[in-house]
Amino acid sequence: MTYPYPEKTRLELKSLIRAVTEKGSSIPGFISFALGSPAPECVPVDLMRQAYLDVFDQDPMAVLAYGPQIGDVRLRDWIVDYMATRQNCPADGQDVVMLTGSGQGLRLAPHTLCDDGDEVYLDLFTYPNATYAAHYLGAKPVAIDGDDDGMLPDKLEEAARSKRGKLIYLIPNFQNPTGRTMPLKRREEIYEVAKKYHLAIYEDDPYGEIRFSGEHIPSFKSFDSEDLVIYSGSFSKILSAGLRVGYLFGPEDMIKKITAVKNTDGQAPLYNQKIIYRALELIDLEAHIQQLRETYGKKCRLMERALKDSCSSRCRILVPDGGMFMWVEIPDAVDIDAMSDAMIEAGVGPVKSAAFTSDLSRPGHAFRLNYSAPSEEDIVKGAALFGQITRQFCGD
Amino acid sequence: MTYPYPEKTRLELKSLIRAVTEKGSSIPGFISFALGSPAPECVPVDLMRQAYLDVFDQDPMAVLAYGPQIGDVRLRDWIVDYMATRQNCPADGQDVVMLTGSGQGLRLAPHTLCDDGDEVYLDLFTYPNATYAAHYLGAKPVAIDGDDDGMLPDKLEEAARSKRGKLIYLIPNFQNPTGRTMPLKRREEIYEVAKKYHLAIYEDDPYGEIRFSGEHIPSFKSFDSEDLVIYSGSFSKILSAGLRVGYLFGPEDMIKKITAVKNTDGQAPLYNQKIIYRALELIDLEAHIQQLRETYGKKCRLMERALKDSCSSRCRILVPDGGMFMWVEIPDAVDIDAMSDAMIEAGVGPVKSAAFTSDLSRPGHAFRLNYSAPSEEDIVKGAALFGQITRQFCGD
Repeated sequence: MTYPYPEKTRLELKSLIRAVTEKGSSIPGFISFALGSPAPECVPVDLMRQAYLDVFDQDPMAVLAYGPQIGDVRLRDWIVDYMATRQNCPADGQDVVMLTGSGQGLRLAPHTLCDDGDEVYLDLFTYPNATYAAHYLGAKPVAIDGDDDGMLPDKLEEAARSKRGKLIYLIPNFQNPTGRTMPLKRREEIYEVAKKYHLAIYEDDPYGEIRFSGEHIPSFKSFDSEDLVIYSGSFSKILSAGLRVGYLFGPEDMIKKITAVKNTDGQAPLYNQKIIYRALELIDLEAHIQQLRETYGKKCRLMERALKDSCSSRCRILVPDGGMFMWVEIPDAVDIDAMSDAMIEAGVGPVKSAAFTSDLSRPGHAFRLNYSAPSEEDIVKGAALFGQITRQFCGD
Repeated sequence: MTYPYPEKTRLELKSLIRAVTEKGSSIPGFISFALGSPAPECVPVDLMRQAYLDVFDQDPMAVLAYGPQIGDVRLRDWIVDYMATRQNCPADGQDVVMLTGSGQGLRLAPHTLCDDGDEVYLDLFTYPNATYAAHYLGAKPVAIDGDDDGMLPDKLEEAARSKRGKLIYLIPNFQNPTGRTMPLKRREEIYEVAKKYHLAIYEDDPYGEIRFSGEHIPSFKSFDSEDLVIYSGSFSKILSAGLRVGYLFGPEDMIKKITAVKNTDGQAPLYNQKIIYRALELIDLEAHIQQLRETYGKKCRLMERALKDSCSSRCRILVPDGGMFMWVEIPDAVDIDAMSDAMIEAGVGPVKSAAFTSDLSRPGHAFRLNYSAPSEEDIVKGAALFGQITRQFCGD
């Protein structure tokens, strides 16, 4: 007899991103555009080593023993200051909770805010863990259609009329997977719907600092007069993804409840937080972020050029203003699964849109291509290969 | 208007353990028996420093970048071997999932196994996060009475007749907070009830290696013919609590589902796992565990003697065969809240049983005293103070 699992965990949701990596691992010279990893050349290795040693040697037992549940207080203060000065979000009535990677918040928000069957609204194509986390909690992920400016307010409102909505999940800057950035006007329109239906907004902003063209757009959090917005930030893309340090910044009462739920998981690794704080003391952050932007911008333009030179004219290439991902739409009539398999066999691994859909019945017709992790050489080579196969499948 | 939180997170569950620490922090010379921290003198600081450096210098990007979702494969293999050789649990049909501290499993098990309203059975006095995690998931924690051998099988069966039961939470060795160890016969009886009602058993064993008297008792997992048992292990009490590395070992299908749910939280910090693995390579584990047992045994006997010399004869002192905690029961007629406050004011901080109850209507009449974290001097002094106040409240 098998164990009587609840409905919510009976369906297994598989990562199609990992599937690309796994298939590719047996192909010699495989060029992966599948990961969402930061550019390795931008990780300040020597400085991080110094930070590790400084933290350990200053007080080994602060590293090796349990520490305060709240996390490293100096890093929290740094975040409050960062949110006020760089994101224009003062701390009045707001609080911070430290996370083991900002990804932890994708589960904590619906865990704290949603009852069984409550609805979470997401872009049709979005970060899969946000969809999966809602699903595994017994909440209902609902896909909302968008255009080039992101989620459509009237489509959101249509869904919210169910009165079962609790939460909107958004990545307003350089969205994963589409690379799109939501203009201020659209943010304000979405906010109006959230206000009307009392929906919380989870503003996921891991890539926000990596803008290499266009102007900074104010975050939802910066005009959150109604205390609806939880802002999620991360050090993964700026300093180190491996340390798994992220945070949520939001209304005091929400953060308090999220913290209580989080605490049942036990304490987050304090050492990792202390290393990040020490690295922030050691680094020239402005100069470092400038370097990140230049590197990412250069890699993005390299991919853009190679794709435009080689892709079928029937493809639509969306070039982002920042972040890590390019999005290539193909005609609806093309068999995307066959095309994806052909890509991998030929030695290049983008990720097909089905990996990101929040509505399993709509797998879509597009590919996400990461340009931050591969080398410049691989970007050029891989994009040419990708383009060649688009011409095979979509025509010149 | 406040946000419409779901029922399950509306009630705030507060840690009465932390309350003791907070109150005590303003009292000069305060001796805390409140924490569940390992003996600091047993943490192999220099060896851990070596492990940190070795791991970083061998491959910095394996530390600083994202790694495999599965965790460190060598540490997983070590665990499989450990379970087979030291716990007599072969790996056939079983699997491992790495956790960010074994505490993460307290949430993952009910998250994966329970629907809204499903019942989780726990000892009346138990580790609070197990109760809180079930509650915050919308499951129903149900307190089961016990005796000196632990949970009573007939009481468990009485509850399980509801047919809403999904999970039993147990700490069979040196239970937190009572220090009790469940004899083999009782384990077998509990297992029979689990089998009959198809309940999973979460066997939490963070203290199992720290036995300083009596004989090893086979784990539930070692006779789990029906694939009902998830065994939870930790490196916090053996090597370092601060690194937050634990694991679950259980039936393949359960671990697979738990892993899928866990993955929505993102990746666990890989560095921490690598450090633990390197430390296991560097250390003489047998000798280290022997030293742990001697240190903990000595501290336990010291507290036992000091309590027996000073406590009211109307107290019942439960002396454990291992682990970190002593349990002192007081007469039902005594006002335990007043007594607890008087303890803290006098400068000693045990934790009253209300902190551990899984049934808020039954706060109980007992105190948990930790002897691993305080120094030998503080144990003697604090236990004498504790005893003195028991005589004030309970009579000689």
